[in-house]
This record gives sequence, structure tokens and C-alpha cells, in this order.
Amino acid sequence: MIRIGIVGYGNLGKAAEKCVNDMQDMELVAVFSRREIKCATVPVYSYEQLLKRKIELDVLLLCLGSATDIPEYAPRLAKLYNTVDVYDNHGKLPEYRAEMNNIAKENRHSSIVAVGWDPGLFSLQRTMASAILPKSIPTTFWGSGVSQGHTDAIKRIPGVEQAVQYTVPKPEALDAIVSGKSCDIPATSRHYRQCYVVCDERECSRIEETITTMPDYFADYDTRVEFITKEEFVKHSEAMPHGGQVISADFSTNAPQIYKFELELGSNPAFTASVMVAYARAAHSLWKNEDYGAKTILEIPPCLISPMSIEDMVNNYL
Amino acid sequence: MIRIGIVGYGNLGKAAEKCVNDMQDMELVAVFSRREIKCATVPVYSYEQLLKRKIELDVLLLCLGSATDIPEYAPRLAKLYNTVDVYDNHGKLPEYRAEMNNIAKENRHSSIVAVGWDPGLFSLQRTMASAILPKSIPTTFWGSGVSQGHTDAIKRIPGVEQAVQYTVPKPEALDAIVSGKSCDIPATSRHYRQCYVVCDERECSRIEETITTMPDYFADYDTRVEFITKEEFVKHSEAMPHGGQVISADFSTNAPQIYKFELELGSNPAFTASVMVAYARAAHSLWKNEDYGAKTILEIPPCLISPMSIEDMVNNYL
Repeated sequence: MIRIGIVGYGNLGKAAEKCVNDMQDMELVAVFSRREIKCATVPVYSYEQLLKRKIELDVLLLCLGSATDIPEYAPRLAKLYNTVDVYDNHGKLPEYRAEMNNIAKENRHSSIVAVGWDPGLFSLQRTMASAILPKSIPTTFWGSGVSQGHTDAIKRIPGVEQAVQYTVPKPEALDAIVSGKSCDIPATSRHYRQCYVVCDERECSRIEETITTMPDYFADYDTRVEFITKEEFVKHSEAMPHGGQVISADFSTNAPQIYKFELELGSNPAFTASVMVAYARAAHSLWKNEDYGAKTILEIPPCLISPMSIEDMVNNYL
Repeated sequence: MIRIGIVGYGNLGKAAEKCVNDMQDMELVAVFSRREIKCATVPVYSYEQLLKRKIELDVLLLCLGSATDIPEYAPRLAKLYNTVDVYDNHGKLPEYRAEMNNIAKENRHSSIVAVGWDPGLFSLQRTMASAILPKSIPTTFWGSGVSQGHTDAIKRIPGVEQAVQYTVPKPEALDAIVSGKSCDIPATSRHYRQCYVVCDERECSRIEETITTMPDYFADYDTRVEFITKEEFVKHSEAMPHGGQVISADFSTNAPQIYKFELELGSNPAFTASVMVAYARAAHSLWKNEDYGAKTILEIPPCLISPMSIEDMVNNYL
């Protein structure tokens, strides 16, 4: 049994708890949180106990935010545990990977960094597609799904009572890529931003104007604002769907080759947790083989994420 | 530069030649053939020269048939070279992998076996999807594309002048999987068999009857026969399209998760060659690291198939 710990108990941590408890080869040992929380399945410990390594774990899942928590805690935790995280600050990934690699190596641990679906599975598909079809450019479409940053930007506008923003791929951009009409459409033209807003109806026109002209967030996008009732809003806030596609299309000959990977996720945190938990198996396996350091999804043999023996995988899936 | 040799100069070998010649980090050194052939880009050598290892190579691409050539030659060639093959006899893959592994290890070579798109990329997706979504069953749809075995079966019927058989996924089966209506549809119900036949029109009804009742090949399938002219047939014989999908859908909660990988290939041999050539890079890298033996796609870190440094991959694709 692989002994798993979870630090952070938001949507991702709760989804990871459920996922680990479903696995035959894993045992959830502890949840760690700064806050006073209740967890039905395992004991909850404080950060102090986490940082003193009071609990024996094989792998710690870092279900923490990328903005401040991961940069602050992940390097300290990689000294003490094998870790898996979904750090998604694209611009800082190279230096983060290097820092985690040094720390994990020094402390004889195995860390897997940035392993959700993007970064994560989508990164893997982009890398493989561009190696196999070097004349194609992998294009990523995100959504339809909620963008937290853009949702927050709308909520800060005075008069907005509730809001949610979905990023949605434009069908005409998808069509242009798979039909070979275009191979290089910028992200701002591949997606539109669908905003649902709850407010007093006398405020609608001012709020719509404020959203669609907001620099950085909305001004450069095809932004669509729809005003809804509080009751309609409840539906949007319950589900956390997301997904997207990676498409690489080679139209350099008259026999076009199209490579496509797609996720349609009813729950973004549940799927992200599923990927983390599968890669926890890989982290444990790398550590047992004394293959220390931090790795991305690109560097890990895929068989390490399966609970099966390689012989069973060859029989069942090859 | 990685020095590549190709053995076998049919559709796959010719596609591999083109693909290697397009790569910046590879040099095609030789083509080996039993037949008297002409190759415009590199010298052609005999099997005798191949088996005496007269030419210095880093990786040999085995562009040979799975029925008899691979079982006969691959074990002999793994003694002499690092190899990549697309052996696709699913039933015999476990023992083939074990045999190649022993020979390659003993002779300090690195072999990659069964690495096209199925077996190959599809195997990878089935393995990953089932590890990440353990409550789903990966389902594979093949086509639309030509099945060589079934085409040959039709051609053996007396009176058939020309024939081609396409395996085609049934839209209603695809829909049942992605909508959660069903998760276990046998291959015979997921596909139909579209047969195009050229014959004397007086023979049509007898030939159609013979095809649709043919045991093993067609009797258990939804088989559709269409009679076409010689001129129409030419179009079918020029293109070699294929492709398919691997879909894993988890409907165990009210937030369904769908994982989907799809290939739409204008040319089956060209794409299969592209995968082999990318994995030739991995074979060379494994060999340089003294990681000897035979591996499947499941056991290989994906970064090894890219010509980029890991830092560039992290920057560009993570």
C-alpha cells in the first residue's frame, strides 16, 4: 500500500481524498490544513506537524494554490517528502522545476511537478505531437470552462452581485485548424469569453461596458455578457466543468495527418486530482528505484502510473 | 546525427525514408532489401550485407510485415542493431517482447517493439486513460480505413476483379460511449465493414452473398457491399487513409469525465513511419544511456522522442 498524505483541503484536496480512497493500492493516511477543518475519512493535522514530519508518508499531494502557496511550501516539503503538485504558473515553471529538482535530489526524494491536465496531459500531447508531426504546430483550445481569474475580475466591478466567466473555443477557429485553413491562430482569436452576471437591471449597460473594455482581461477578446437571475446563477456555481483540446494538423502533403486529444470534464478538480493520484504511483515507484529529483510528465515512463504489472498492461492495452 | 537504416522497402519503408530525410538530427545511411530495388536517396544493400553488419548504423527501422518477416528477422537483427518495429500481432506480443528483451539485453542493444499507432499511440492512451479514470473502460474505434486482411479475403472470391474493404466506426456506437448510454460494446457492434467491389454485374448478387456470409471475416458484422467501376476503384487505391479513436468515459458520478484521443490519417503508412522515426530517437537515447533490452511505448519517457532539450520542451510545451 502506498501511504498518501494530502496538504490543502479545498476543491482539489477534497477531490484527491475521494480519489485515493477509491484506489486498491493506496491508503490515505492524513490530511494537513492550516484551517480548522473536518475530514470524514482520515485524521487532520496542522502545518506544524507536516513540517516536523510527524506522520510517515510515501507521497504527499500538494493540493495548494499556485499563486503563493506552492512557491512558499513546495520547496520546503520536497525536503521532507516525495511530492506531486499541479503548479501551473507557466512563466515560472522552468525555474520551479530546477529548484525542486535540486532540493529533491539533495534529500533523496522524488517529486513530480506540474502534473494536472494543463500543464500535464496537454503538455504531454503537445510534446509528442510535435515530435511525431514536426511540420505541424500543436494548438490548444481551452474550455468550455470557468476561468477563476476572469470571474474574480468581474466580481470586483461595483454593482456586480454574482458572476462567472467561461472560456469557450470558437468553432470557426477549431474548424480552421482541422481543415488546414490556418495553423497559427492566437489564443485571443481561438476563444471567446462568455460572462454571466447577476445585478440590478438598471446597472446592466454600465457593467457590460466596464467588462468589455477592461484591459488585459476582456478588451482584446470577443467578450459576450449575459445577465441572469440569482436562481440561474446557482446552476453555474455548482458544476465545475472544463476541458479542451490539443490539435496538431500536418497539411504539408496532400494526405493530411491530424492528431487530436480532447478532455470533456464534468468536474475540473476531480479530474485534476485523478491525474495527480495516478502520478503519485509514479513518484513512489521512482523513489523506490532511487531515481531522485523532480520530474515533469514528459520525463516519466507512462507505465509507472498504472497499478498493473507491465505484463498485464502489454496483455490488456498494447 | 543519428545514423538510420531501413530494412524493407514497401509503403512503410518508403514513408520512413521520406520522414528520416526530413529530420535535422538524423541521417539515412542505407536501405536493405531482398529485392532488386531503386532508392533515390541512399545506397541499397542486400540482406546478406545486413546480417553481416557491413554498415555502421545507430538504429535500424524494421519496415517488415508482421505475419512472417518480423518473427523471422527481428530477433536476428536485435543481436546486431538497435531496432524499432511495428509488430502488430496482438496475441503474440507478450512473448515477442520477452524474446526481443532477452536478445537485446544480451547483445547490449536497445529495441523498441510494436510502436506505430495501434499498437503504439493508442496503447499508450488506453493505458493512461485506465490509470487516470479507473472506473472507465477504454474503448477503441478503428477507421475509417482499409483493412488489408479483409480486402484480401474479398479478392480471393472468384469473379472479383478488384476490391477494398473499409472498417468504419458506427456513429451510434460512438454516441453511446460518449453519452454514457453504454460502456461495453463489442468490436463487432462498434464498426461496420464497407466493401467496394469491381466485378461483372451479372456476378453481383452471388458475390455479395458470398461476402456477407463469410465466417470469421464478415458474417458477424454489419457488412455493406457496394459495386463500383474500375475508374472509381482507382481513387480508393491511391489514398491510404486510416485513423480511429480511443475513448474512456467515466459516468460513475453526475460529473462525467471524458478522455478522448483521435487520429485522422490521410496516409496510414506515412503516419506509422512518423511514429517509428520519432521512437528511433528514443532507441538511440536509451542505448547511449546503456538502458539495454526491448521496451514498448509504455516504458519510454515521452521526452526521449523529441529532438529538443528537456529545458526547451518545458519552455515550449509544458
